[in-house]
Amino acid sequence: MTRIRLGMVGGGRGAFIGAVHRYAARLDDRFELVAGALSSTPEKALASGQDLGLAEDRIYADFEAMAEAEAARDDGIQAVAIVTPNHMHASAAKAFLQRGIHVICDKPLTATLEEAHALVKVAEASDALFVLTHNYTGYPLMRHARQMVADDKLGTIRVVQVEYAQDWLTTDADPDNKQADWRTDPARSGAGGSTGDIGTHAYNLACFVTGLTLDSLAADLQSFVPGRRVDDNGHVLLRFQGGARGMLWCSQVAPGNENRLTLRIYGDKGGLSWGQENPNVMEYTPFGAPTQILTRNGASGASDGVRIPAGHPEGYLEGFANIYSAAADAIAAHAKGETSAALYPTVQDGLAGVVFVDACVRSSASNAAWVTV
Amino acid sequence: MTRIRLGMVGGGRGAFIGAVHRYAARLDDRFELVAGALSSTPEKALASGQDLGLAEDRIYADFEAMAEAEAARDDGIQAVAIVTPNHMHASAAKAFLQRGIHVICDKPLTATLEEAHALVKVAEASDALFVLTHNYTGYPLMRHARQMVADDKLGTIRVVQVEYAQDWLTTDADPDNKQADWRTDPARSGAGGSTGDIGTHAYNLACFVTGLTLDSLAADLQSFVPGRRVDDNGHVLLRFQGGARGMLWCSQVAPGNENRLTLRIYGDKGGLSWGQENPNVMEYTPFGAPTQILTRNGASGASDGVRIPAGHPEGYLEGFANIYSAAADAIAAHAKGETSAALYPTVQDGLAGVVFVDACVRSSASNAAWVTV
Amino acid sequence: MTRIRLGMVGGGRGAFIGAVHRYAARLDDRFELVAGALSSTPEKALASGQDLGLAEDRIYADFEAMAEAEAARDDGIQAVAIVTPNHMHASAAKAFLQRGIHVICDKPLTATLEEAHALVKVAEASDALFVLTHNYTGYPLMRHARQMVADDKLGTIRVVQVEYAQDWLTTDADPDNKQADWRTDPARSGAGGSTGDIGTHAYNLACFVTGLTLDSLAADLQSFVPGRRVDDNGHVLLRFQGGARGMLWCSQVAPGNENRLTLRIYGDKGGLSWGQENPNVMEYTPFGAPTQILTRNGASGASDGVRIPAGHPEGYLEGFANIYSAAADAIAAHAKGETSAALYPTVQDGLAGVVFVDACVRSSASNAAWVTV
Amino acid sequence: MTRIRLGMVGGGRGAFIGAVHRYAARLDDRFELVAGALSSTPEKALASGQDLGLAEDRIYADFEAMAEAEAARDDGIQAVAIVTPNHMHASAAKAFLQRGIHVICDKPLTATLEEAHALVKVAEASDALFVLTHNYTGYPLMRHARQMVADDKLGTIRVVQVEYAQDWLTTDADPDNKQADWRTDPARSGAGGSTGDIGTHAYNLACFVTGLTLDSLAADLQSFVPGRRVDDNGHVLLRFQGGARGMLWCSQVAPGNENRLTLRIYGDKGGLSWGQENPNVMEYTPFGAPTQILTRNGASGASDGVRIPAGHPEGYLEGFANIYSAAADAIAAHAKGETSAALYPTVQDGLAGVVFVDACVRSSASNAAWVTV
Repeated sequence: MTRIRLGMVGGGRGAFIGAVHRYAARLDDRFELVAGALSSTPEKALASGQDLGLAEDRIYADFEAMAEAEAARDDGIQAVAIVTPNHMHASAAKAFLQRGIHVICDKPLTATLEEAHALVKVAEASDALFVLTHNYTGYPLMRHARQMVADDKLGTIRVVQVEYAQDWLTTDADPDNKQADWRTDPARSGAGGSTGDIGTHAYNLACFVTGLTLDSLAADLQSFVPGRRVDDNGHVLLRFQGGARGMLWCSQVAPGNENRLTLRIYGDKGGLSWGQENPNVMEYTPFGAPTQILTRNGASGASDGVRIPAGHPEGYLEGFANIYSAAADAIAAHAKGETSAALYPTVQDGLAGVVFVDACVRSSASNAAWVTV
Repeated sequence: MTRIRLGMVGGGRGAFIGAVHRYAARLDDRFELVAGALSSTPEKALASGQDLGLAEDRIYADFEAMAEAEAARDDGIQAVAIVTPNHMHASAAKAFLQRGIHVICDKPLTATLEEAHALVKVAEASDALFVLTHNYTGYPLMRHARQMVADDKLGTIRVVQVEYAQDWLTTDADPDNKQADWRTDPARSGAGGSTGDIGTHAYNLACFVTGLTLDSLAADLQSFVPGRRVDDNGHVLLRFQGGARGMLWCSQVAPGNENRLTLRIYGDKGGLSWGQENPNVMEYTPFGAPTQILTRNGASGASDGVRIPAGHPEGYLEGFANIYSAAADAIAAHAKGETSAALYPTVQDGLAGVVFVDACVRSSASNAAWVTV
Repeated sequence: MTRIRLGMVGGGRGAFIGAVHRYAARLDDRFELVAGALSSTPEKALASGQDLGLAEDRIYADFEAMAEAEAARDDGIQAVAIVTPNHMHASAAKAFLQRGIHVICDKPLTATLEEAHALVKVAEASDALFVLTHNYTGYPLMRHARQMVADDKLGTIRVVQVEYAQDWLTTDADPDNKQADWRTDPARSGAGGSTGDIGTHAYNLACFVTGLTLDSLAADLQSFVPGRRVDDNGHVLLRFQGGARGMLWCSQVAPGNENRLTLRIYGDKGGLSWGQENPNVMEYTPFGAPTQILTRNGASGASDGVRIPAGHPEGYLEGFANIYSAAADAIAAHAKGETSAALYPTVQDGLAGVVFVDACVRSSASNAAWVTV
Repeated sequence: MTRIRLGMVGGGRGAFIGAVHRYAARLDDRFELVAGALSSTPEKALASGQDLGLAEDRIYADFEAMAEAEAARDDGIQAVAIVTPNHMHASAAKAFLQRGIHVICDKPLTATLEEAHALVKVAEASDALFVLTHNYTGYPLMRHARQMVADDKLGTIRVVQVEYAQDWLTTDADPDNKQADWRTDPARSGAGGSTGDIGTHAYNLACFVTGLTLDSLAADLQSFVPGRRVDDNGHVLLRFQGGARGMLWCSQVAPGNENRLTLRIYGDKGGLSWGQENPNVMEYTPFGAPTQILTRNGASGASDGVRIPAGHPEGYLEGFANIYSAAADAIAAHAKGETSAALYPTVQDGLAGVVFVDACVRSSASNAAWVTV
């Protein structure tokens, strides 16, 4: 068992999602972090690399240098995790993809639709793999839900209610809060605020589980906090191909919601309800029969992506790690010239997310007119 | 303590809501049922009246006869409960209002907007009171929530998420199901299906608690069950005067939802979350502090409309009875020439509900265009 | 439909349980309250009777006078509700039973074991019925649970976990709190405090649902609040005939518990879990399959004792009313010389409760030694 | 940052808890697994070591050989994880402690009380550290609860209700289930079945959070499954020093309970309630005020041992990893001749657990007589 040599772009001291990627990469012991361009500030890049025990010569001041140097090494990185603010995803990903280094990139794919289309072309032209960390698809019960839908347990899907509510931006953010700083800056975050940061997760998860394709949407976005330059709340009507309808609500100004991503799906044979904050249970109602509480690795058979027995809760990091382990499977298969069946979000899912944000912003600017995606 | 003499129109054998009104009228012992035109089928009207122990001469074959006869008696009814299908509300209410008999009417106010406007005029011209049984406003925690909003506990309201989901019409209803039969018949129910039957409750409750006034809405209604002539699912974007936004979802085809009316309200100071199926608890989050579980008659002080101690659950009938008892208070005050402070939904609330349904239907027919109400 | 003429002993101004009995008697319209000896203080008895609209000549200053006078009337009461403090149950019940008036008595049966045995003899010698209001057995889901056990859905019962926790006596009670005053006075309450007040409910419910008979118990009772003269917390080990074991916890000093009566039952085929504070749902696990959420009047078929559709919550008063309506059925059958199949707690259940309290007190006094009941 | 070199005894193919220890050791990147005696079957030991990528010369056929060889290497292991069945803990721990290698040992400490006392002596005589993985103490909210008790938020503790219920042994276990096989064999598990396997966790957690010391207990243990040689259900009354009382229930035959460890604590100022299956929330009731929902890393300030923001659930592995990271802190401090303040269960906690099991077994054998511990 040889671990995949991994580099990281972004994720230096004070970052949130970089640490999450490192936990996720480490949990199943399939990756070894060996290089990093962890900050755009050279001193911080160095200090952050030292924190993580990287060799001095593999701590880089910028991703271009890292891509070039690592591509030239015999023991160079095989994959890179990109965990910068959104506006840097495209250029960083390009640097590695063009050198044949696999990319594991945080979402949303890019800050703009133009970048997204361009990146898709680069990714398609590259032999390297592109994995997008829509991590909520890594939860075992979301995989089980997807399988249940595929197995027609719900019948024809009619209604999809998906929500992602937070409250951390209810008031004007502390200027020292780096997370809030870039996420509310359209230059770094993209035109969508809550829609890009969390709405894309909700949208991706709904499509992942239902297998539905969005036809069009009508969005009413708001920026409730005075001075805020991106949306902090969004109400979106969804029309899926084939006739299913849905509502998506994303908010970062809803007090009492820490990270409440919920998904409810109703078909003509049954319904499902799940919430991310207690991800180890899901309610399933076969129409006309009592609701069942399905548990991760429990009697329901939801065992895909689990590590430990039922009743021993797995959480966010474990779900995230499932994306990393799927990436590891795919990378291992790729090395043998094979194609893996591993389930992970791709650059196309990333494009769909950016298309979604763009459509929301355009619809809202047109008084919530329908926009076909 | 003299009980108010009550008549009933509709509510004969096999009806659902008539029995509910009788429980509600009886619980606090403020009313005595003494007359009825319980069915439009004479034999059924008679049998139903006998079931309820009414005097033979006060069992009527139609409401007009009842209105006339009771108005002429010294011991005639002082109030009437109207619990027919929607299309009969207006004519029945008119018959009693014009004779000075107080009306307690089930919702929605009428089947059509024209009827609603006409009925408002009749009610305003009458000295008699008009009470609409939007019973969910009778729950003690909904009254408490209204008071909390009024006391600025949530700050300026930004977002309102209100839902009313059921599953009993997921499939084509049994033709013998009388409830389903008239509720899915636009001639008796009105143009709205789920919007009229339950969407009006959700809309009314949201306005009751928040004190907000709707400015406009955009609705996407569906009839998922083949052959159904009214909507069975509705997604509605809400814009309130003053800038608050909301989403309303009503559905009768969502398996796993028995009668799931939920209300969530978010302001710049805090949030509230409540669900009708366990109405004795409500979550309240002062922004930045832990969420609190407020209980009916518990440490939170939610004591308006309660009968028994905290931890002893009160339910649907008790909430419904609070509307009846408010009506009793108002009727008692009226008899003394006074005005009561009792809190109950009025004919204006009823009109607002019919306006809401009409706007939903028109918006949906125009591809979810915004309709100002 | 003629209503049963009902009298009441106790339940005057300021009382809690008297009002509950009146709600319960009224809900299904099977009783009419026509007489009362509502307080042992004559002025209060009079005022309380007037509050309730009783005829002046049927407001009595003491229960003996009431029993005698009512028994002599042609239209005298057919049944009496006894809602006094515990120490008066026996004498009051005797006065009516001996005159052939049916008794509906609050629990525990009596304050002492001697009284209980004596009262059983009186009841057995009387032609009148004796109904004890262990109201929690009136909840539809508890009846459904009983039926499920009888239908062998759980297999052989092994373990019973029953709890009844409150917090209202966590601190020394306000001397003006009449409820607390008599309930913590052994002369009026009996030797058991929490064991008598709520432990008996828990014990009764466990036996009602499981059908098991207690063999012996070991109890460790405490009086945590300084100066308290009765137990305010009790831990009891249970051994049932046939080998099942259980634990019973009752407490009135457990902050956060308003009225948390819970019952969990485990057999070799499945388990059940229910809590009184949200009585409309119950969890059922067939061993090896997902847990099901059974709802009152829902897909599970729990329809015994329900009034309204699933999702419309019924509560404490409705459950209590089921005992009254069972009493009405039994009284009606009795009047015809028939025996009713109505399910209600009897004087024998009452004796079992007093035996339970006595055994707990004796066991605890002997360092939690086993006491056979 | 240099990782601690770790060996492992037990935990080969098919084991459950060995994999858990490896996840836990890896999550925070403080340990590196470099050696193992992973099975008592040599071929399996080899294959298991290869699975884990261990160097061939550091895959040992038995722990004695491993202890001797590793102690002799310059780069030998600094710590060892012992994850065998219980009866081997003592001899394995001894082999490493006597060579100055730190021990991280699964619970219960040993299979017998004699072994436990002997091991304590060895541990006390050794300079090496001894860490027992009572992992549930690693949950952030359990640490927060402990701090709340220490800060007198609950006042004087009166009542402790602790339960650990499972259902996986409801029926006679599959003979191929290795977990069930040794856990129901008194020779390998010890005299306690459910008491040793899970009751010790419950007992440890209750003491950890409350800071109380047990005085005596009375236990009624059962073996419900025919032929089972150890208890599969236990009811235990607890008397703590200072007057607090408690009940402990452990069961492996309670259908519907996957791994339901719950802790409720009541003092004269407030109460706490927590359950392991959704470990990111805890209810706290300051007496007389609404119950609060405290969340991991949320507004309550429960931040000790957290990795990611509120609303992003952490689970069993993360809690387990907190024990490993505390061990890493302690080992790092030890290397500098310092004493760490890291919070982890010790050999004394382990002894207390074995004393608890022994007392339960003795009490139960004496008809649940009180046994002083």
